Amino acid sequence: MRIAQVAPLFESVPPKAYGGTERVVSYLTEALIALGHDVTLFASGDSVTSAELVPIVERSLRLDPRRPDWLPWHTMMVDEVFRRADQFDVIHFHVDFLHYPLARRSTTPCVTTFHGRLDLPDLAPLHRHFHDMPVVSISNHQRRPLPHAHWIGTVYHGLPGSLYRFHDEPEDYFAFVGRISPEKRVDRAIEIAKACGTRLRIAAKVDEADRRYFEHEIRPLLDHPLIEFVGEIDDAQKNDFIGKARALLFPIDWPEPFGLVMIEAFACGTPVIAFRHGSVPEVMTDGVTGWIVDDVKAAIAAARCVGELDRRRIRAEFERRFTSDTMAARYVDLYQSLLDSRSQRPSAPRAAEMVD
Amino acid sequence: MRIAQVAPLFESVPPKAYGGTERVVSYLTEALIALGHDVTLFASGDSVTSAELVPIVERSLRLDPRRPDWLPWHTMMVDEVFRRADQFDVIHFHVDFLHYPLARRSTTPCVTTFHGRLDLPDLAPLHRHFHDMPVVSISNHQRRPLPHAHWIGTVYHGLPGSLYRFHDEPEDYFAFVGRISPEKRVDRAIEIAKACGTRLRIAAKVDEADRRYFEHEIRPLLDHPLIEFVGEIDDAQKNDFIGKARALLFPIDWPEPFGLVMIEAFACGTPVIAFRHGSVPEVMTDGVTGWIVDDVKAAIAAARCVGELDRRRIRAEFERRFTSDTMAARYVDLYQSLLDSRSQRPSAPRAAEMVD
Repeated sequence: MRIAQVAPLFESVPPKAYGGTERVVSYLTEALIALGHDVTLFASGDSVTSAELVPIVERSLRLDPRRPDWLPWHTMMVDEVFRRADQFDVIHFHVDFLHYPLARRSTTPCVTTFHGRLDLPDLAPLHRHFHDMPVVSISNHQRRPLPHAHWIGTVYHGLPGSLYRFHDEPEDYFAFVGRISPEKRVDRAIEIAKACGTRLRIAAKVDEADRRYFEHEIRPLLDHPLIEFVGEIDDAQKNDFIGKARALLFPIDWPEPFGLVMIEAFACGTPVIAFRHGSVPEVMTDGVTGWIVDDVKAAIAAARCVGELDRRRIRAEFERRFTSDTMAARYVDLYQSLLDSRSQRPSAPRAAEMVD
Repeated sequence: MRIAQVAPLFESVPPKAYGGTERVVSYLTEALIALGHDVTLFASGDSVTSAELVPIVERSLRLDPRRPDWLPWHTMMVDEVFRRADQFDVIHFHVDFLHYPLARRSTTPCVTTFHGRLDLPDLAPLHRHFHDMPVVSISNHQRRPLPHAHWIGTVYHGLPGSLYRFHDEPEDYFAFVGRISPEKRVDRAIEIAKACGTRLRIAAKVDEADRRYFEHEIRPLLDHPLIEFVGEIDDAQKNDFIGKARALLFPIDWPEPFGLVMIEAFACGTPVIAFRHGSVPEVMTDGVTGWIVDDVKAAIAAARCVGELDRRRIRAEFERRFTSDTMAARYVDLYQSLLDSRSQRPSAPRAAEMVD
């Protein structure tokens, strides 16, 4: 199949630092190519890919010190994608909705995956207007604010099978990985670890926007013999950091659309103690990959007996449900369903205005 | 001619308060209708117009306390405009560049007027990419940062001839009208008035963003018997406020793309002392509608002898160059030139992907 992947231009594909969407687009692209598909990637010019790269901007926007305005560049990308649309069987967008007016008029099937939360109020009227745009969620829970959008499937994120090594023998600590921000609730992780008398190692980025929160709410909690703040770590360091943990603590307090770090832990064989929000009940297999909890008390109880879980089974769950091969196969099914339904699809808007 | 006018959704057309673009779109729309054209206006639902209104959003975005995100609504508008494109001979956009990818593929000629400054760095690559999009400037100076865009004309803004009354007998004060912001240089206006020993009346809005500047830099200058700060005024009040002034001071320090307040003064017969920046040398007729100056010293000299100017001639210049009828006639010429060149226009991008 000739597939276009359209990535955001904020980070390169894959990103040099943080950037969940661009990472997943990279994994998907490589897995599709491994499955034998012909993939063209629209992305920033500093991307590294096995696909044919169409570089829209020389450098990913967030790393460019000139602080470029994102909208002109994404507008150019949308134009360039549709200039080449007849070269593809399907076009897969990962860039919200800027392309909808053209996608609606395209004879090449288009599909859009949402990577973020969808409870922004203006997305509801937008998807009533563009009710015919096929969209994909990364968890069923993510869909809730937009029940009337044209959902064609949920595809869970996946990681390359070899990205994280299975770790059979954990050391005696819990891990927290993520940004420091109020909805990630590292304070709860600290409370749980202290109650268990277990060391907590925190690998976390502090964005400028959360600096105040970190200094006022979190820094005072770090001065304790059980708590170690290691700062930001890269993918290579994550492997052992998560893999050697007895459990990953995921005490979130927001509608997480997916939560990549949970499946990173599964890939290592590390169980996860996760609070019941957003995608958690879908991504977790309760009692197998860890425990889903509703409060700190339950989290402490779960954390205490986390050694009962079979780390090999956790890795097996990862391999069954969350590899990038699984993700790619699922997307190929969706692409095929779009191609199959092409002749029956709801009538497109009038196109008398379009250049013939 | 069947003409679509596409306005920003930030303010209603015309705006209830500040909103230069929406005001001009309103004047243009009414003048086109007066000339006998069939006009459809895409705008917020609280707009008031003689055109057929296509309401995209119930309420103009800036007045909506829910603080809507502008991009979904403007994306819906672009879609709606092109859904109806075959109903128009020409489509006139006043909303920057979001529509370019569709405009490029449209068989109905499209033209875009820029209402703001164009020296944002990402607009240059955007217009190299969309080099075929016909664009209109509101002053020749405005074009400078984008020499390679496809400029098809400059059309100066215009006001309805009866909006401002001619005032023959000025009172003994200078007027300053505008936002309080560093580039408007009300401090210079104060310096000029004090040096002339003439009263200065300041009608100005203070945006939240400029509150600090106002409190620190401007407020201390206001405590002087010659200086009167009257705050924000509406269009009706402006008539006498500007009309009764001996001169309007326009001591700007930025590349003003047009400067509506200059022609408001001309409509009243009030001369303008304007600093040489941006559109000023094009809008002003030096020695007739006022004086163009390069520094405060020259401004003081000019302000002292402003009584020499013939206020009737200033009003005559307004009527000759800056009515909305003149503006509308000029736009109709441009629309016609687009229609005439339609068969010869540069080849559009391939459209194999478009629904036929």
